[in-house]
Amino acid sequence: MSIKGRLHGIGVGPGDPELLTLKALRLIKAAPVVAYFVAKGKKGNAFGIIEDHLEARQQQLPLVYPVTTEALEPPLSYEAIIGDFYDGAAETVAAHLDAGRDVAVICEGDPFFYGSYMYLHDRLAMRFEAEVVPGVCSMLGGVAVLGVPLVYRNQSLSVLSGVLPEDELRRRLADADAAVIMKLGRNFEKVRRVLTDLGLADRALYVERATMSNQRIVPLDDVDPMASPYFSLLVVPGEKWQR
Amino acid sequence: MSIKGRLHGIGVGPGDPELLTLKALRLIKAAPVVAYFVAKGKKGNAFGIIEDHLEARQQQLPLVYPVTTEALEPPLSYEAIIGDFYDGAAETVAAHLDAGRDVAVICEGDPFFYGSYMYLHDRLAMRFEAEVVPGVCSMLGGVAVLGVPLVYRNQSLSVLSGVLPEDELRRRLADADAAVIMKLGRNFEKVRRVLTDLGLADRALYVERATMSNQRIVPLDDVDPMASPYFSLLVVPGEKWQR
Repeated sequence: MSIKGRLHGIGVGPGDPELLTLKALRLIKAAPVVAYFVAKGKKGNAFGIIEDHLEARQQQLPLVYPVTTEALEPPLSYEAIIGDFYDGAAETVAAHLDAGRDVAVICEGDPFFYGSYMYLHDRLAMRFEAEVVPGVCSMLGGVAVLGVPLVYRNQSLSVLSGVLPEDELRRRLADADAAVIMKLGRNFEKVRRVLTDLGLADRALYVERATMSNQRIVPLDDVDPMASPYFSLLVVPGEKWQR
Repeated sequence: MSIKGRLHGIGVGPGDPELLTLKALRLIKAAPVVAYFVAKGKKGNAFGIIEDHLEARQQQLPLVYPVTTEALEPPLSYEAIIGDFYDGAAETVAAHLDAGRDVAVICEGDPFFYGSYMYLHDRLAMRFEAEVVPGVCSMLGGVAVLGVPLVYRNQSLSVLSGVLPEDELRRRLADADAAVIMKLGRNFEKVRRVLTDLGLADRALYVERATMSNQRIVPLDDVDPMASPYFSLLVVPGEKWQR
C-alpha cells in the first residue's frame, strides 16, 4: 500500500512576510508541492509573502480562479462556476496527495477565516490527512497598524461582510459593541452611509492592504469609494474600558 | 535630550511556541526588557511560550495581577482594583521607557483582541512610540485544531463572552451565522443551556487550551462544567457553503 501525502492549509498572515509563523515557514520549506489560489494574470498575495523561501526543487501549483467577480450576467452563475472550479482544484491537489506528495496550500491571513482553503478542506479532509496552521488574520493586522484596541473585556465583536444588504448591515452594526467590516471594494459607499446614519462614522477607521508594503490608512471622509480595494477594512473599535 | 525607549505589544499566539511570528521572535530577542501579565504564583502562558528564546542579559518584568476573579464581595470592586493595578503597571513600564530601554510586552494570542496589553497601550501610546505586532488569536488556534472552517463567504461572525447575561447570549447567538464563545470557565453551563435551547448544540464544538501541549477536545455533552478552564472555547461554525 502506498502512503498518501498530507494536506496542509497554511495561513501566511496579512501581508508583511515577517508575520509568517515559525510553523508555517517550516512546513512551507518542507513541502514538495506548494499550492495557492490566484487571480488570472496576478502573482497572488499569499505567494508574494512566501516566494523568497521557496527553492527550485519545490513544485509551485497555482490554482487560477476562472472569474474575478461574483456579479455575473445570467445565464452565468458565480456559484456554479466557482463550485466547478473548486471541484477541479481539489482533484488537482488530490492527484499529488494520492502520489504520496505532501501539499502545502498557502492562504493569506488564516485558512479558516474566510479563506479559500476551506473549499479544498471540505472536499479533501475526509480522504486525506489534513492539518491547518492558523495565521494572523487580516482583521488583526488591520487593528495593529491602526494602533487601536479592538475589543475590551466582555464586549461582543461582529465581523461583517460589506456585501451584506444595507438593512442587514444597519441592524447588525447597531447591535455591535465593536465591528470589523471586510470585503469593501465597491460596497464602500453603502457601508459608509450606514456608519454615518448610525452615528458611528467618527469612531470608524479605514485601512487598505494592512501590513503590506503598499498599506494606506485614510480618514473615512477621504476614501474614494470607486478606488477602495477588496483588501480594505473598516474597524469600529469597542469603547475604551476605563474605570 | 535623552531618547526614550519604544513600547512593543507583541502577540505570541495561542500556545504552541511554533505559532510565534518571525517578527515577534525578532523583537522579543532584541528587547532589553520583556514584560508580561501573570497571575500570582503562576508562570504565565505568554511567558511559557517564549522563555526558551530569552537570554540572561534580558530583564524579565512580570506584572502580577492582584486578583484572579472579577467576582469580589463588596466593598471590594474589581474595576477599582484592576484599574489601580493597570495604572501602576503602566508606570513601571514607563520608567524603563523613560530610561531609554525598549520594552516588549508579550501577550497570549493577539494584543488587541481581548488582550491585557490594551490597558497599557491606552495609558502609554500617547507618551511613547508604541507598535503592536499582531498574533494568531486563540479563536483561530481553536478552529484550526478542531479542523472546522469558521466562516464562509459573506457569513457574519459573532465573537461573544461567556460572561454575558443569558438573555443577551441567546439573542446574539440566535442572530449569528457563526459564533465563537470565549471566557467560558464557570459560565459553561449557562452557555451550553442556551446552545441547546437554540438547537445549536449539535453544531457546537468545544476545545480547551487549543494548540497547547495539554489541549483537550471534548464532545459538548461530556464537558464537566465545574472543570472548564478559562482558556476554553466554544465554536458554532458557519454552515458549509456548497452550491
